[in-house]
Amino acid sequence: MSAPAAFALVDWGTTSFRAWACTSDGEVLAERRAPEGLIGVTDGDFAGVLDRHLGAMGLSPDTPAVLCGMVGSRTGWVEAAYLTVPTALDDLANRATPVPNAGRPIHILPGLAQRGDAPDVMRGEETQLLGVVAEGFDTGLVCMPGTHSKWVRLDGRTVSGFATFMTGELFQLLRTGSILRQAVETDTRPEPSDAGFSEGFARGFLRAGEATNALFQLRAGWLLEGAAPALQSARLSGLLIGLEFAGALSRFGRPDRVALLASGPIADLYASAFALAGLTLDRRLDADGCVRHGLRAAAHLLHPDRRSA
Amino acid sequence: MSAPAAFALVDWGTTSFRAWACTSDGEVLAERRAPEGLIGVTDGDFAGVLDRHLGAMGLSPDTPAVLCGMVGSRTGWVEAAYLTVPTALDDLANRATPVPNAGRPIHILPGLAQRGDAPDVMRGEETQLLGVVAEGFDTGLVCMPGTHSKWVRLDGRTVSGFATFMTGELFQLLRTGSILRQAVETDTRPEPSDAGFSEGFARGFLRAGEATNALFQLRAGWLLEGAAPALQSARLSGLLIGLEFAGALSRFGRPDRVALLASGPIADLYASAFALAGLTLDRRLDADGCVRHGLRAAAHLLHPDRRSA
Repeated sequence: MSAPAAFALVDWGTTSFRAWACTSDGEVLAERRAPEGLIGVTDGDFAGVLDRHLGAMGLSPDTPAVLCGMVGSRTGWVEAAYLTVPTALDDLANRATPVPNAGRPIHILPGLAQRGDAPDVMRGEETQLLGVVAEGFDTGLVCMPGTHSKWVRLDGRTVSGFATFMTGELFQLLRTGSILRQAVETDTRPEPSDAGFSEGFARGFLRAGEATNALFQLRAGWLLEGAAPALQSARLSGLLIGLEFAGALSRFGRPDRVALLASGPIADLYASAFALAGLTLDRRLDADGCVRHGLRAAAHLLHPDRRSA
Repeated sequence: MSAPAAFALVDWGTTSFRAWACTSDGEVLAERRAPEGLIGVTDGDFAGVLDRHLGAMGLSPDTPAVLCGMVGSRTGWVEAAYLTVPTALDDLANRATPVPNAGRPIHILPGLAQRGDAPDVMRGEETQLLGVVAEGFDTGLVCMPGTHSKWVRLDGRTVSGFATFMTGELFQLLRTGSILRQAVETDTRPEPSDAGFSEGFARGFLRAGEATNALFQLRAGWLLEGAAPALQSARLSGLLIGLEFAGALSRFGRPDRVALLASGPIADLYASAFALAGLTLDRRLDADGCVRHGLRAAAHLLHPDRRSA
């Protein structure tokens, strides 16, 4: 028989809600996934949504919950003010924001902010990073692909700097709302092995300055040469990811140690991009697993009494 | 009293219709501007729309008309097949497509296509270029800013190559449809003198590889430092134009002679961008005037008998 749940761990973003009931050792007793992100919560009833999901997992009303993600933003439940980098990742727990009058003990982990001439923010990824260091990768560059890809420099459990690239959002915008629409219209997901992907990557990585010209060429190639939309879509994906790699190496230099933190098909696409850039990955980590590990690490720091629960 | 009209000159694009009644010497006797671009023509009645406008300018039913723009595309009236560069600009008239059974003599000028590993197309701009050479600038680089900015290399009345940059479209997409929306939301048009414009330009021109990171920083700077949307909008404009200049110089090298072909506020913005890039403009030409001059030059070649009409 399993130990009882020690913690509720919750990753609550703009468009999705994920919760796990975990033992102190990290064994997952139950999991909930729902489309009830911030924009799906009506009348600000965050407490009601949370209680319903945790109740459905059989958690008692006094089980502590640790939350991360946009739920701690200004437009979320309770604002968990950003910590300014450089930040030791253990501070995520030390400086978590308690949610008052919630019945059970609830903490929201803060996001990270970078101030000065390269302003940047993250919310949610910092908790994944806490999971990354728990996995033993605590110094080097971490690549976290997505709608807004993050590249993060870790120096011994401390985030010393990071940069966000709008790669995924640009891909969607250009595919659906721009003059490239017809040229790249397809249900086919770009694959790492596509010639178009490596071609586009080389273009973006080696000739970043010509990026907005390369975009228009996707349309012209379709118009003049009948290039297939699946090919142009793979080229677009490669171009934007190549541009991201050019930017990350320009910002952080070629890393000595590098880890890729991703889940699903995008993980293979980025692994292939690392090979194209001539970089050897030291670690490949699962993003879903890392956010859970990070939440649990924070929960241990917040509730040392439940460590052996 | 003026000489009678020798030609009807028409620039017919996707969203706009412009026509001039001109003497052989180029004197404008009448002008029409209407929002009846291609997408405003119902049931393919191009002939009806044209006749109505030319009739309203008092042109007789036998006055020849010369057309350019998207009206010659596959989705227009009659397709005027692209000429492949390198192309002598006089060939625009020599290889114009006649519109059959139209009553009056009507010709549509072809667009230009670049084939091979840098595919590209233009329709309408080639006619402006004919006007540029008529103005005496026939060798050097021509910059034509817009939704899809074109940079064109002219070698003695011949277009030897060109490149399109999606600058204006990206500006609109990012301003209205992306996560940058709130950060750059403003009615204020970026001015050449804005500090944000020159800052953004330097960022795009000198550090093109970091462009998709610089985009996200516009949001982060607004969020963390309360940077005003007018400032962020000027930075966005500068960034995208800087990226375009980086790309154009990467493609064509630093030009010996360069001309700017533009109308309205964007002309001043780009003139300022040339100064920021350390390039001296040899000529500044008006885009509206050049398309008319180009159409008239083509009309002279197509209808030599009316040269002294």
